[in-house]
Amino acid sequence: MTTPSSSSPDYATLGFTQILINLEHKGGIAIVTLNRAKYRNTFTKLLLKELTIAFELFDKDDRVRVVILTAGHDAPAYCSGADLTNGWDPWRSSKKPGAENNSPHADGGRLVLPIYTCRKLTIAAVNGDAAGIGITGLQLPFDFRFIWGGAKLTFPFVRRGISVDGLSSYLLPRLIGQSRATALLLSGLTVVPSSTLLSGLYFQILDRREDVLPAARAFALEMAGATSQVAVAYSKALIQRPGRSVEENHRLESECTYRTLNAGDAAEGVSAFLEKRKPVFRERLGDRWENWWDDQVYQYRKTKL
Amino acid sequence: MTTPSSSSPDYATLGFTQILINLEHKGGIAIVTLNRAKYRNTFTKLLLKELTIAFELFDKDDRVRVVILTAGHDAPAYCSGADLTNGWDPWRSSKKPGAENNSPHADGGRLVLPIYTCRKLTIAAVNGDAAGIGITGLQLPFDFRFIWGGAKLTFPFVRRGISVDGLSSYLLPRLIGQSRATALLLSGLTVVPSSTLLSGLYFQILDRREDVLPAARAFALEMAGATSQVAVAYSKALIQRPGRSVEENHRLESECTYRTLNAGDAAEGVSAFLEKRKPVFRERLGDRWENWWDDQVYQYRKTKL
Amino acid sequence: MTTPSSSSPDYATLGFTQILINLEHKGGIAIVTLNRAKYRNTFTKLLLKELTIAFELFDKDDRVRVVILTAGHDAPAYCSGADLTNGWDPWRSSKKPGAENNSPHADGGRLVLPIYTCRKLTIAAVNGDAAGIGITGLQLPFDFRFIWGGAKLTFPFVRRGISVDGLSSYLLPRLIGQSRATALLLSGLTVVPSSTLLSGLYFQILDRREDVLPAARAFALEMAGATSQVAVAYSKALIQRPGRSVEENHRLESECTYRTLNAGDAAEGVSAFLEKRKPVFRERLGDRWENWWDDQVYQYRKTKL
Repeated sequence: MTTPSSSSPDYATLGFTQILINLEHKGGIAIVTLNRAKYRNTFTKLLLKELTIAFELFDKDDRVRVVILTAGHDAPAYCSGADLTNGWDPWRSSKKPGAENNSPHADGGRLVLPIYTCRKLTIAAVNGDAAGIGITGLQLPFDFRFIWGGAKLTFPFVRRGISVDGLSSYLLPRLIGQSRATALLLSGLTVVPSSTLLSGLYFQILDRREDVLPAARAFALEMAGATSQVAVAYSKALIQRPGRSVEENHRLESECTYRTLNAGDAAEGVSAFLEKRKPVFRERLGDRWENWWDDQVYQYRKTKL
Repeated sequence: MTTPSSSSPDYATLGFTQILINLEHKGGIAIVTLNRAKYRNTFTKLLLKELTIAFELFDKDDRVRVVILTAGHDAPAYCSGADLTNGWDPWRSSKKPGAENNSPHADGGRLVLPIYTCRKLTIAAVNGDAAGIGITGLQLPFDFRFIWGGAKLTFPFVRRGISVDGLSSYLLPRLIGQSRATALLLSGLTVVPSSTLLSGLYFQILDRREDVLPAARAFALEMAGATSQVAVAYSKALIQRPGRSVEENHRLESECTYRTLNAGDAAEGVSAFLEKRKPVFRERLGDRWENWWDDQVYQYRKTKL
Repeated sequence: MTTPSSSSPDYATLGFTQILINLEHKGGIAIVTLNRAKYRNTFTKLLLKELTIAFELFDKDDRVRVVILTAGHDAPAYCSGADLTNGWDPWRSSKKPGAENNSPHADGGRLVLPIYTCRKLTIAAVNGDAAGIGITGLQLPFDFRFIWGGAKLTFPFVRRGISVDGLSSYLLPRLIGQSRATALLLSGLTVVPSSTLLSGLYFQILDRREDVLPAARAFALEMAGATSQVAVAYSKALIQRPGRSVEENHRLESECTYRTLNAGDAAEGVSAFLEKRKPVFRERLGDRWENWWDDQVYQYRKTKL
């Protein structure tokens, strides 16, 4: 059993340059803005590092209930993929994965893990074009995706000579089905959000770029006020790490039910419902979390790679 | 190998009070009606018990080919979730799951297992609003879902302070994809059947509440007359317990093909097809069933929890 | 580690009678046409044999980048299912699967495996009605499905007294979700391509039968010219054999990234992108492929059945 300790960092002092972080304490919303507009927000080793640190902190920061990732709506793109100034170099490694120190691993997947396993609600507010890691790592691991209807989107990997990246081979078939995922990943076609190939991927499609972040933020505020941080975390973990059969899943769900039912938020949730008022959930994830499924699937944050 | 023995109970003598059962012998249709309209058909320990017994009997009753679950179309709701008169009390337990006698387990999942693993065709005829267990346990484990277009639907768990229930963390992502399932389960939003978030979940959406059960019953009668009870049971088991790879699944399908091809219904099916007439399938599941996949996945009805 | 050796057979000399093969050397497109129009292209043991040999050759033939399967657009059907002239006889076997020599297995699945695991892009150009194996084995294992909008489609198994075939119990739920797959497989209903039950299955729906193959061929030519054979093969393998968790998948993707990044096509892909020109991918799968996941999932083409 490991319980990640909670923390309350001052995000302004972290010295990030490729992302900007704004924590709205009152609402519990952290907004992360990609800060490389001049370079079409392309992905670099430094951006990977800053985003990884940020999402690992959000995961443990009990003040944060919802995280939004976005870009400037007047940037040339949400993210145009990897920075290819020096070819695939930053992506490439001289060492075989799985060797001694178990690294390096593909940067796309390294970005996805801390976002996907962040126990808070996460929203991608995609207010521009996106390619490669811009649609894999910066969209697929999020819980909700808001997007500008005019965005051009592509998984270009097979047209660049490399295999699919950013855990898209795992996430996309699960998110929208293997038929659509195969068509998108093996063709590298450029599509728009209303394409039937993307059906089900986007939570909301907005007509104007400048409306994407406000819509995401309004939704985030509603979620932060209406949902239990603890209930969200356990529910998200169940969705991401289900049982291998319906019977095993029953056991996992029962464990989570046991943990959440015998806690304060459940009592408040019922009281508020019966009294027809909005609930005030006070429990903090740092106090309540336990990785009860350690020996079932994989230990939280200790990937045996 | 275990072969559940068949039985032909008299459902009228079982003393159920929270559900009503009507077995149409001729058509092979069992219609179960939730009988707690006065309480919005909320879920109780007794309702769980009666539904469990009923579906375990349907599973073994060779007369039953299709089961329909419905509510009165003038009831205030199809099912408004758990009975919260005493808070979460009936749901809560003092004992940790997995302990000695392997119980108690969450009631939602306990309801789902006998419905999901019932080897007959099952239909949910949802003619009213549904929340919580009303949309998880009373809808997701069914093979076909008919619904009134005006129904308000919600998975409210994270807004009540508890983790998702009724094996929705397992079933919903598989049924309609993880993207839509995550959006529904982690937001607790209230939606209507035509919502794109629910796309693919409902087999038919009816404009009027009173038309839901008749539409479901007409479909059930057609299915009962046109399909082989044995072929349905093996096909359903294959869908629910697929191989872990395409190769393993090939072995499982081959086993089922072997069993069903060398039986009477397969001969009748081909003859009827070649003679361009309706088939008359006479084989009974009680005579033909064998849990051949026991050591592959999980033993039928013997969950090692 | 096994590396299938490459080959360049002369398809005209193979003596096939139930399929016709046309290899367009320049474009790298192999077009296979079902040649049993007189018999509604029903499925026979010989057709199984010829298709199996053909797809195993395409897999190893470095000249082939895309395979299209189609029928004559004036044939009475794309494929009306199994040849039932002698009942289920060709399908049936006297031996139990899994016995000594590990055969026989269901013919549907035997057809699916060489198509699904063919490492090239595959397209089904469905220009007529399809039933049974005509929609399972001859459609589901392909990467892209083009279809005539007027085609009548059915999975008739439960109405013929046999369990579902052609690995549809595995593939259909993954391709379009378990809700739609269950409705289709357990009802045996006849539907058209625009049915919401099939949503997501077809890449393109054409109004006229005669337009299906030309549309598929035009798409194939574009794909053959724009994509890396090696990148496609690794990406396809990742989609078909994902990790059991997001962490394990990260390791698998990292392996594939390592292999493809350090190869010629990746360099060409980046150069072409930066120079805003079309890439010319020269690497051949026969030179680059390695079954690195052997001990993870299943050995390529060595199914331990």
